[in-house]
Amino acid sequence: MASVVRSGAWKALKNGSTSESFVHLHRFQTLRVRSFSATMSPPSKAVVYEQHGPPDSVTRVVELLPVEVKENDVCVRMLASPINPSDINRIEGVYPVRPQVPAVGGYEGVGEVHSVGSAVKGLLPGDRVIPSPPSFGTWQTYIVKDQSVWYKVNKESPMEYAATITVNPLTALRMLEDFVTLNSGDAIVQNGATSIVGQCIIQIARSRGIRSVNIIRDRTGSEEVKQKLRKLGADEVFTESELEVKNVKSLLAGLPEPALGFNCVGGNAASLVLKFLRQGGTMVTYGGMSKKPITVSTSSFIFKNLSLRGFWLQKWMSADKAKECRGMIDYLLDLAREGKLKYEMEVTPFDDFHIALDKALGKQGSQPKQIIKF
Amino acid sequence: MASVVRSGAWKALKNGSTSESFVHLHRFQTLRVRSFSATMSPPSKAVVYEQHGPPDSVTRVVELLPVEVKENDVCVRMLASPINPSDINRIEGVYPVRPQVPAVGGYEGVGEVHSVGSAVKGLLPGDRVIPSPPSFGTWQTYIVKDQSVWYKVNKESPMEYAATITVNPLTALRMLEDFVTLNSGDAIVQNGATSIVGQCIIQIARSRGIRSVNIIRDRTGSEEVKQKLRKLGADEVFTESELEVKNVKSLLAGLPEPALGFNCVGGNAASLVLKFLRQGGTMVTYGGMSKKPITVSTSSFIFKNLSLRGFWLQKWMSADKAKECRGMIDYLLDLAREGKLKYEMEVTPFDDFHIALDKALGKQGSQPKQIIKF
Repeated sequence: MASVVRSGAWKALKNGSTSESFVHLHRFQTLRVRSFSATMSPPSKAVVYEQHGPPDSVTRVVELLPVEVKENDVCVRMLASPINPSDINRIEGVYPVRPQVPAVGGYEGVGEVHSVGSAVKGLLPGDRVIPSPPSFGTWQTYIVKDQSVWYKVNKESPMEYAATITVNPLTALRMLEDFVTLNSGDAIVQNGATSIVGQCIIQIARSRGIRSVNIIRDRTGSEEVKQKLRKLGADEVFTESELEVKNVKSLLAGLPEPALGFNCVGGNAASLVLKFLRQGGTMVTYGGMSKKPITVSTSSFIFKNLSLRGFWLQKWMSADKAKECRGMIDYLLDLAREGKLKYEMEVTPFDDFHIALDKALGKQGSQPKQIIKF
Repeated sequence: MASVVRSGAWKALKNGSTSESFVHLHRFQTLRVRSFSATMSPPSKAVVYEQHGPPDSVTRVVELLPVEVKENDVCVRMLASPINPSDINRIEGVYPVRPQVPAVGGYEGVGEVHSVGSAVKGLLPGDRVIPSPPSFGTWQTYIVKDQSVWYKVNKESPMEYAATITVNPLTALRMLEDFVTLNSGDAIVQNGATSIVGQCIIQIARSRGIRSVNIIRDRTGSEEVKQKLRKLGADEVFTESELEVKNVKSLLAGLPEPALGFNCVGGNAASLVLKFLRQGGTMVTYGGMSKKPITVSTSSFIFKNLSLRGFWLQKWMSADKAKECRGMIDYLLDLAREGKLKYEMEVTPFDDFHIALDKALGKQGSQPKQIIKF
């Protein structure tokens, strides 16, 4: 698998060479290799980790040897790739599905076709592509994988949206479609509304006439956050403490009781979503930012007939969804191009990867989604 | 509605007559009434409550005036009716759907047709009938309701099973059929396995080749309880403390991981059901005996893809299920007649209603289901 670090480069590291001497050795080897074969990729600069642990201490940027571009392979020069929370969890070793170490980090991104094998059809150098379904090892400058991995996207799609479209926006879209049939005029409720998925839910719902009730945590500047979410299309935004009332539904004003709720926080914030749901409603859990479990009364199940479900994009992907997935990517990138799907991102040059990583790890307070530009 | 206490009788009580003087007055009136009309029911002796509260203090047995048997009515002499936990909750006023007070207690039972109105078809005096769907006010000696309420059952059905078939066994049957498609060889897991519903689940599952993993609370004599449940067809029975192991599934021996679980306890016992479930499994909550909520980790939803649902027979009934319901009653009564569906009951004469009620309230420790014989 191309996501496994190329063994030659890896051996050099294991033999105790410093990263600097390794890079020199590596470049020397690279030149030698390229001299006798035209079907090799360029060397790749990659974020690798040899063992699981805190991402800021186990990852380093190394240069990897060129690999052969076989007849069905496409060599892609990566342009941009995000640092998603799940990428961090994979490096930490706490994510149930992750590549074997040593591994290159990353799971989604966008690139440009650099070269193609002799049997490749429909992709040409210069094409803008994303791995779809997403695929491990996107934090590197050149990736060689089978042509089936790559999906050509509209070159006019904003680069940072193409880089991030298959994890967060797709999660939002699937969750809006897969659990409850929603019609224009219906409402949903969610906590963690400021997360990227949360923002996508607000906007995709809005584009379909679906109203949203949004719960955010108490924080300084919450009025500003509310304004921002309302601007995206949120109908109602409440802080958790504003919902310390006897009957949260009395705050719904003209909105219908939500049939569907989303939880990415757990604890009290999950209970608040449940309180808003209508009789027979469904809450879908897709994250647990508070690290607290979800607590539900017996009567919520029996008398209120609530259903609690979960969503995990990676599991959904593992079914044979490639084709379906690609159609949705076009839909979502169209929304992004039209300005109907927006979220904050910060683009950081690859050389500053560890600064971006620190931000993604929350070491500098709340920060926008970090996008590595290669 | 016939479930409302007849107003004449009720006025007498409200006017402060003692229950003894009331009965005398009532009998006198009855005789007078019957003398000029042949279409009246006999007077009825009933368990009534005028306000919500502790069932042993708010209920009393009174005699009610005869009521008219209209052309579509059937007058049934009740033979037997159980005291179900939901009957107690309705009297306490803590059940979401309950008759308006003053009311006669009870929700299911069996009786014999005493007389029929002139337009009644298909029912004759002497027929054995149950109210189906069940219907409020079964704790009385004579009930007059529209013919559509009554369903004729096989006279050879054991009386106490006919009296109890529409609440507990039907709950067990619906829960086995409505959430997950189970095939012979599949397994289910449940807590509260000694409850009547739990015992029915074991036996109905067994009759379909479905294996059961059963969780009981720690108690003295648990070996005896295990024996009893195994005799009913339970494949595995564990006490909660026996499940304090790292991986409960290692205890499954040859059984498949259960796809469906039932929870009527909450708290730790609910968590144990969740632990046994296979990837993508469903837990259905239908009771909360421990009065503790259900706590679920985020990863159970995301990575294990569990679904949590609820079941409430009364809600299920309120949809237009009368016909479907009656077919299932025949099926369940057949099982009972064949000895394939058994559970412990204690039959108590109506005169000792308050003794049975104390037992049903748990005042005398664990007791079999109490059946009032009229």
